[in-house]
Amino acid sequence: MNVKHSKGGFTLPGESGYEKLTLELAEKWGADVIRDSDGTVLSDEILNSGYGIYSTICIIRDHNEWAGKNMDKLQQSFLMTQPKVAEDSFITFHLLDDFFDQQFMVNDSADSMKYWQVFDRTTGKEISNNFWTYEKEAGNVIVNNAIPFHRYTVSFLAYRIWEEISMYNHTTNNWDKEHLMPIDPVHPETQEYMINWLTSWCESHPATTVVRFTSMFYNFVWIWGSSERNRNLFTDWGSYDFTVSPQMLDNFAQKYGYSLTAEDFINKGSLHVTHMPPVKTQLDYMDFVNSFVVSFGRKLVDLVHTYGKKAYVFYDDSWVGVEPYSKRFKDFNFDGLIKCVFSGYEVRLCAGADIDTKEIRLHPYLFPVGLGGLPTFSKGGDPTRDAKDYWIHTRRALLREKIDRIGLGGYLHLVENYPDFVEYIAKISDEFRLIKGLHENGSPYKLNIKIAVLHCWGKLRSWTLSGHFHETYMNDLIHVNEALSGLPVDVDYISFEDLKTADISKYNVIINAGIGGSAWSGGEYWNNSIYEELISRFVYNGGTFIGINEPSLVSGYDTAFRMSSVLGADKNTIDKICHGKWSFEVKDIPNLIPDGALVPLRCKVHLTDGKAKVIRSVNTDPTFIINSYGKGKGIYLSTFETSTPNNRMLLNILMYAADIPFDTNYITDNAYTECAYFPSDKKLIIINNSDRKQTTTVKTENGAIEFKDIEPFDTIIKQL
Amino acid sequence: MNVKHSKGGFTLPGESGYEKLTLELAEKWGADVIRDSDGTVLSDEILNSGYGIYSTICIIRDHNEWAGKNMDKLQQSFLMTQPKVAEDSFITFHLLDDFFDQQFMVNDSADSMKYWQVFDRTTGKEISNNFWTYEKEAGNVIVNNAIPFHRYTVSFLAYRIWEEISMYNHTTNNWDKEHLMPIDPVHPETQEYMINWLTSWCESHPATTVVRFTSMFYNFVWIWGSSERNRNLFTDWGSYDFTVSPQMLDNFAQKYGYSLTAEDFINKGSLHVTHMPPVKTQLDYMDFVNSFVVSFGRKLVDLVHTYGKKAYVFYDDSWVGVEPYSKRFKDFNFDGLIKCVFSGYEVRLCAGADIDTKEIRLHPYLFPVGLGGLPTFSKGGDPTRDAKDYWIHTRRALLREKIDRIGLGGYLHLVENYPDFVEYIAKISDEFRLIKGLHENGSPYKLNIKIAVLHCWGKLRSWTLSGHFHETYMNDLIHVNEALSGLPVDVDYISFEDLKTADISKYNVIINAGIGGSAWSGGEYWNNSIYEELISRFVYNGGTFIGINEPSLVSGYDTAFRMSSVLGADKNTIDKICHGKWSFEVKDIPNLIPDGALVPLRCKVHLTDGKAKVIRSVNTDPTFIINSYGKGKGIYLSTFETSTPNNRMLLNILMYAADIPFDTNYITDNAYTECAYFPSDKKLIIINNSDRKQTTTVKTENGAIEFKDIEPFDTIIKQL
Repeated sequence: MNVKHSKGGFTLPGESGYEKLTLELAEKWGADVIRDSDGTVLSDEILNSGYGIYSTICIIRDHNEWAGKNMDKLQQSFLMTQPKVAEDSFITFHLLDDFFDQQFMVNDSADSMKYWQVFDRTTGKEISNNFWTYEKEAGNVIVNNAIPFHRYTVSFLAYRIWEEISMYNHTTNNWDKEHLMPIDPVHPETQEYMINWLTSWCESHPATTVVRFTSMFYNFVWIWGSSERNRNLFTDWGSYDFTVSPQMLDNFAQKYGYSLTAEDFINKGSLHVTHMPPVKTQLDYMDFVNSFVVSFGRKLVDLVHTYGKKAYVFYDDSWVGVEPYSKRFKDFNFDGLIKCVFSGYEVRLCAGADIDTKEIRLHPYLFPVGLGGLPTFSKGGDPTRDAKDYWIHTRRALLREKIDRIGLGGYLHLVENYPDFVEYIAKISDEFRLIKGLHENGSPYKLNIKIAVLHCWGKLRSWTLSGHFHETYMNDLIHVNEALSGLPVDVDYISFEDLKTADISKYNVIINAGIGGSAWSGGEYWNNSIYEELISRFVYNGGTFIGINEPSLVSGYDTAFRMSSVLGADKNTIDKICHGKWSFEVKDIPNLIPDGALVPLRCKVHLTDGKAKVIRSVNTDPTFIINSYGKGKGIYLSTFETSTPNNRMLLNILMYAADIPFDTNYITDNAYTECAYFPSDKKLIIINNSDRKQTTTVKTENGAIEFKDIEPFDTIIKQL
Repeated sequence: MNVKHSKGGFTLPGESGYEKLTLELAEKWGADVIRDSDGTVLSDEILNSGYGIYSTICIIRDHNEWAGKNMDKLQQSFLMTQPKVAEDSFITFHLLDDFFDQQFMVNDSADSMKYWQVFDRTTGKEISNNFWTYEKEAGNVIVNNAIPFHRYTVSFLAYRIWEEISMYNHTTNNWDKEHLMPIDPVHPETQEYMINWLTSWCESHPATTVVRFTSMFYNFVWIWGSSERNRNLFTDWGSYDFTVSPQMLDNFAQKYGYSLTAEDFINKGSLHVTHMPPVKTQLDYMDFVNSFVVSFGRKLVDLVHTYGKKAYVFYDDSWVGVEPYSKRFKDFNFDGLIKCVFSGYEVRLCAGADIDTKEIRLHPYLFPVGLGGLPTFSKGGDPTRDAKDYWIHTRRALLREKIDRIGLGGYLHLVENYPDFVEYIAKISDEFRLIKGLHENGSPYKLNIKIAVLHCWGKLRSWTLSGHFHETYMNDLIHVNEALSGLPVDVDYISFEDLKTADISKYNVIINAGIGGSAWSGGEYWNNSIYEELISRFVYNGGTFIGINEPSLVSGYDTAFRMSSVLGADKNTIDKICHGKWSFEVKDIPNLIPDGALVPLRCKVHLTDGKAKVIRSVNTDPTFIINSYGKGKGIYLSTFETSTPNNRMLLNILMYAADIPFDTNYITDNAYTECAYFPSDKKLIIINNSDRKQTTTVKTENGAIEFKDIEPFDTIIKQL
């Protein structure tokens, strides 16, 4: 590494009142751009310092004056009361009892109430509105003719009176300012207001070179409860439930020729969780909202462009309808995509988008407390350690695909007492620019392994599931995505529809991973027998199907896993409780499983015909199985958990599947290290993903090269 | 205890060649009856010794001469081949490839083949018999017009050419004699043969006082596989699948007006496991077979009676259609029921039957090796320890209901080298007679707690599930049954039909326990909302619903547990993965949970409305929850495992449910001891269920009595 720092591709959060620090750190970290943060304003000293200027805007909030006069144009959501048991022939619901009253306000207008529904949840049937009444004053729904000991619910529309991100920041960071209300651009009046507002904003911000939209209009869904014992009633980072309003529903009905009901969203109180297979009404509605978000979003982007500014989108928070892998994303005409990253898969999500400039915002955020509630820049915190942890996840993905820019967020002055953090950021900024430079001269070498990850959402949810790793860790697939993000292989995300229509013979491996019934394993899609047929043929002809946890699980067939013949294994279900199970011997495949790699028991399975090889087991339960099938293989893993040795295990499995020897060129022989070879520059980059010194050997076209005692977390470049 | 041994109520297995030992032990153990064993003959010295003589007959085997001439009258079963994947447009099945060829022989007669079926298991559809052919010579079925990469199966009928109990004994005890073939009384010719045979048997056995039928005609289902790695393909101690034959099916169709198919038995290869909710065709068929078994069985019993002998039934092995709680059991006109017991629940099963004489056969069996394959009367075995283990399970049940007789089985000479075993049997035989004597003078005191255990089978499967404890231990309910077998409470087993029609207000507690989808938790029965309504009302009015593991689980509703409102808890399912969970504090109820009692985590649940009390949790998962509901309670346990302290915990839960104080009369205050009070004799009997000395105090109408240092496993009698 140079001691003199390189420059460029770095976005620094400036801070008024700390002009000297801002400019010092801009120099130290090689920044070329300074940005404001949400709710902060940069001073003229910074604005005029010659750096590019990013300005953050969140178009749907911070308009409380207008919002207060247009309360009927606040954003909304369907809510369902907790079920109540009828003890008599009538039952009373105070609609907001279960909900955080600072977040919600009942919308009891006539056009809202036509969407309200009462259900007898014991029978699953809707109660005609002849049998319930609404007491406006009290905010109560009274259900008459109730059947004693049946459970009832009321679904209704509520305005959201506190924009959730500011609500969260208030709560977490003890903010004490006016509650910002989210306004809904579904109304022409709101659109007009926003355009006027943005016009005057652009005029009053001549120094701004890039407008950073955060993100567009509709937040992910975050429903808070009335009790502090259960504040987070529902959190889904992929859900469209916060886009709903009578206007949106009416517009939908006009375009699609059928009306959605509250129950199409409420779904028996489950809501349509992104982790579940989507249903048709949901897909129709998402498509409709996406079309609206893109078309109105495009108007705002065009407006920004008329001022000679660029428009970037910070893909987080109000990101619903902005999905970078949606078919309309290009139509926004954004100039850049900024993604905050905790993990490698978020780097790949950003890097894979079809857009000019790709920027990642590193963690930790310059805040006293991190997202999980633990201290960072405050007593007990160790931001440098955090930065290292995030960097080792981020860096391995940066090796595989080009990212143009990095940046930080938050309050810059917080770093003052953390000089080692300042140094570490300088070091990794240089590393970043170096890696970026290699990409600019040509793509890194990859193994000839093409992978299709098969799930219900397909390309739309490439790399991500619905949010950050720590929100989705219970799904095997996010672990798989994280592992894949740093491997030298090609990865596509395909839907069941793609499986039917695309040429899958180009893939070496199809992966299906998740809990049964989830969007990730596929749920009822597997009722269509075409998928069993297609994948069986794919494997028979030489492909590999990797099934993790409960792949292809669906009920109603002779096997629990539809792909059981390919996998040579099936889930232990209760209807097989009296069936004997094949005994087996565990037989290792040399070098397949690195030291430290683990396959814990998550789903209990048995061998179907006894022919599959059991590579690992936990007691008498096989956890890793390889089955020969035609010219190909079925591989079953009880679960997959990302970790440095497990990531290597996955690479080894993929190499085994693709008949590539484990000691092939440009692969390290130490699972705690990884490398990337850039043939144009003839440069080999080796990273140590561990907190200990590591030694590794890499085979190259010119023979093996040993790298001795690579420092913890370090990056080495070798010119070949 | 008397040193002089009492006498009576003891059945000794005599052994020819060991006449002296037989008579000595008969004296020592207080036997009044000597019996032969299956395949052994008693010598005249024993027959003429003045003891009652039991003779064992198994009517369906040991007739190989006749069977060999009537191979078309052997018993049969439906079998399904392992699924095979079509790699081409045709696929060949060698029918017996997967099966133990010493057990099965294809029945390819015309009346059999009309029941054969080929299925495309990928689509779930039957293949018309226009598209498959049978090659008789080769024993192959060839399916034409197969769709490549679909999976196919063939269901067919096979004769069973080796009666399974003798097959098992051959294998386990290395017998080496002719394979006995099971003959099927469904044919009039077989019936005629059996009646003639039994007539001549009765005439040639004048010394026999009791004929011990083992049991009647049809064995539980035990399908063996061709591979030693998977010998036990299927074992179901409750299934009727071994009663099947073209004749039986034709008779059924005639009576019921509709025909059953192979698939009605094969059920996609799962077979209709007794642990699963029964379906209508299955219940119809069981009723039909039960009617046949009882009507022909009655003829044999009548025949025995004409010779002045009694007819007992040993309820095991060929017991299908003989269920003591079936509505027709009384119609057999048996004089006695003999049940082999490992566990307390088997004692209660026997004691609760409506029959004159109730006998239990104790364990260990006098065999070198026990049922689990471990040594008993051979090197490494400790039969006295085994006997103690079984006795502490058996004895607590004997306290609650009267059993008339006990006995042993096997080869008597094996005890010669185990004098402590001989002494221990003498001791517990005396204990047994003492307990029996107390019952004869009046019933023991019970708490005023009436329990209904609710499952799909109801009364038919009272106390048992489908077999011995070690075969069914994975079901929570067998643990509950075992615990209940020794508690001073009333227990009924009721079906969902009973729940609708019976007066459930007489119960204090309804228990529903098991894996979701099982016969024990109820599966799809819960789709009928009447059950939620009835049980909710029952609890609201003061009853208690105890749900264990996945009670009332069924899919398609807003909650996973139908009884979630009563329980205050619901299962964590994937569609609630984004829903927040109520936090809680664990709060104990004093004296509810004895030291050593445990509620492990089996099913992960959350609180529904946060109001229920969490009594125990494992990490953040509640495992024991009490919810107030109206005047009653919902109680949730993540699982229940029988053990001495856990059995007491269950009693405490029941007392808590019934508002009975824990320190009520005639309950020990030490969980490792139990007691029973017999008011007629004013006798209190205290048992130590542990292998250590125990001290306990029992409150009585005349004050508390302390029992100090009760010896391990000991029994104490106290005259009040």
